[in-house]
Amino acid sequence: MIEIQYIFELFGTVVFAISGALAADERQKHDWFGITCFAFITAIGGGTLRDLFLNSYPLVWIADMNVIYAVFAGIFLAGIFYRYFSKLRTTLMLFDTLGIALFTIVGLEKAQSLGANDFISVMMGMFTAVMGGVLRDILINKTPTIFVEEIYATACIAGGIIYLVLDSFGVDRNINFIVSGAMIAIIRIITVKFNLSLPKFYK
Amino acid sequence: MIEIQYIFELFGTVVFAISGALAADERQKHDWFGITCFAFITAIGGGTLRDLFLNSYPLVWIADMNVIYAVFAGIFLAGIFYRYFSKLRTTLMLFDTLGIALFTIVGLEKAQSLGANDFISVMMGMFTAVMGGVLRDILINKTPTIFVEEIYATACIAGGIIYLVLDSFGVDRNINFIVSGAMIAIIRIITVKFNLSLPKFYK
Amino acid sequence: MIEIQYIFELFGTVVFAISGALAADERQKHDWFGITCFAFITAIGGGTLRDLFLNSYPLVWIADMNVIYAVFAGIFLAGIFYRYFSKLRTTLMLFDTLGIALFTIVGLEKAQSLGANDFISVMMGMFTAVMGGVLRDILINKTPTIFVEEIYATACIAGGIIYLVLDSFGVDRNINFIVSGAMIAIIRIITVKFNLSLPKFYK
Repeated sequence: MIEIQYIFELFGTVVFAISGALAADERQKHDWFGITCFAFITAIGGGTLRDLFLNSYPLVWIADMNVIYAVFAGIFLAGIFYRYFSKLRTTLMLFDTLGIALFTIVGLEKAQSLGANDFISVMMGMFTAVMGGVLRDILINKTPTIFVEEIYATACIAGGIIYLVLDSFGVDRNINFIVSGAMIAIIRIITVKFNLSLPKFYK
Repeated sequence: MIEIQYIFELFGTVVFAISGALAADERQKHDWFGITCFAFITAIGGGTLRDLFLNSYPLVWIADMNVIYAVFAGIFLAGIFYRYFSKLRTTLMLFDTLGIALFTIVGLEKAQSLGANDFISVMMGMFTAVMGGVLRDILINKTPTIFVEEIYATACIAGGIIYLVLDSFGVDRNINFIVSGAMIAIIRIITVKFNLSLPKFYK
Repeated sequence: MIEIQYIFELFGTVVFAISGALAADERQKHDWFGITCFAFITAIGGGTLRDLFLNSYPLVWIADMNVIYAVFAGIFLAGIFYRYFSKLRTTLMLFDTLGIALFTIVGLEKAQSLGANDFISVMMGMFTAVMGGVLRDILINKTPTIFVEEIYATACIAGGIIYLVLDSFGVDRNINFIVSGAMIAIIRIITVKFNLSLPKFYK
């Protein structure tokens, strides 16, 4: 099962790299170097920030070259299937949703294993999932989408809380991983489909 | 006295959280998640950067849930008293000034206790006070105010230097805390009131 | 030779500080505090990020006041020779090129000495050279130049690879430092002179 999770993590990395490469180029024509940067930032930015905050070294992508290969695989796929992906925004959204679902639980579990309390663990799970996209958006100089649209990060927080609740009831960890990950994906998909959003702070 | 300082720190955190929540919403209608993010970044961003630079772990907000509660208290107050606060910009400015005064000295002392020299300690004091606001401004995609207006960071640096000078004269630490913190607040208030600014770099 | 390299490092720091001070002011009239910030970020941002990623403490500028003095020297020179520098954009570009050439190899060697593999070392060399400018561009709220123009970062990566190849052939380290550094400078200068760029990602 550890191996399956590891494969899921690398798969999530590929998906986020694709998403980073495509998102960057919506705004401007970038060269190969720029696209590579954006793919890396989107895929490994969240985990890096989490590990800096939790003092967890070496960073995942410095210790494990497979993460690097996964990012390059994503860039390669984005380059090959560019026209295909950009027509299929729904497909891309589904991949991205899978990515945040996997990364939220992976990040939460890592924070817990480093001794973080429940609140911080949920926060770190959400960070792992969304901060790569936030850093990418800062670099391409737009207000990060998570601040202006959709229940993106909130789905991750909800999934993290579900994970902790099920865990406290003694639910098997592997089942819990799948259930709470699936909840994140379902919340995300429903809110996008029905165009739901959180209430505005001020009327 | 340590306890009084701790209460001041938490109070500074509340004030910065209010300031972050309100500043974010001047520009755009954000949902609750966005406001929460901005409040957190403003309140804990400066201290986090300082601790990353000085390799001081665990980070304050990861180790101490009271910091988290203080941020939520600030968000809650911003939500309740929104209309009131936004009409009373002067009140808000005074709270923010109290925040930077407290955080500058707190940050400076922390850097010193970690072995930093005088220059770095003053720099870290200023960082603790202003970097949360800078990070928030980057996220809402505007040029950080400290780079275009007012003697904001300079007041913090001046206060830090005053603290070190008084300390070298053997002034009691508690008195020094109050005096140099008050100097920061006074400089800030005078410069805002009389609309003073540093000379431009090039004419 | 170590001393010569150290002098080169400080010289690179001065050059980047000049470049930071001038680049910031192209966009807006900044006060002395803002200029000082931009000079610091440009000069020490890349090395700081590298050291955070590699968990290398204390940070260079916290441990060695000469780095701080070098930045202030750069600010001072930018202030004095402002008119002169801004007319001589070619001169400034050459200084900046020398800076990235030196910092790439310095950063690569530091990463290697901390046990990073070849890929990560080249990446960290490039980071050391370009990330200060990237952070500065984020702060002045423009899309970092490296993402939209010129073979800037690519020259650093190429130079890093050349260094590793020559190193694997047993070339003397000092000669290697000069040769691969010179290659970075030559690639940069040729691409600017002939206005070359990487192919766009999508046609």
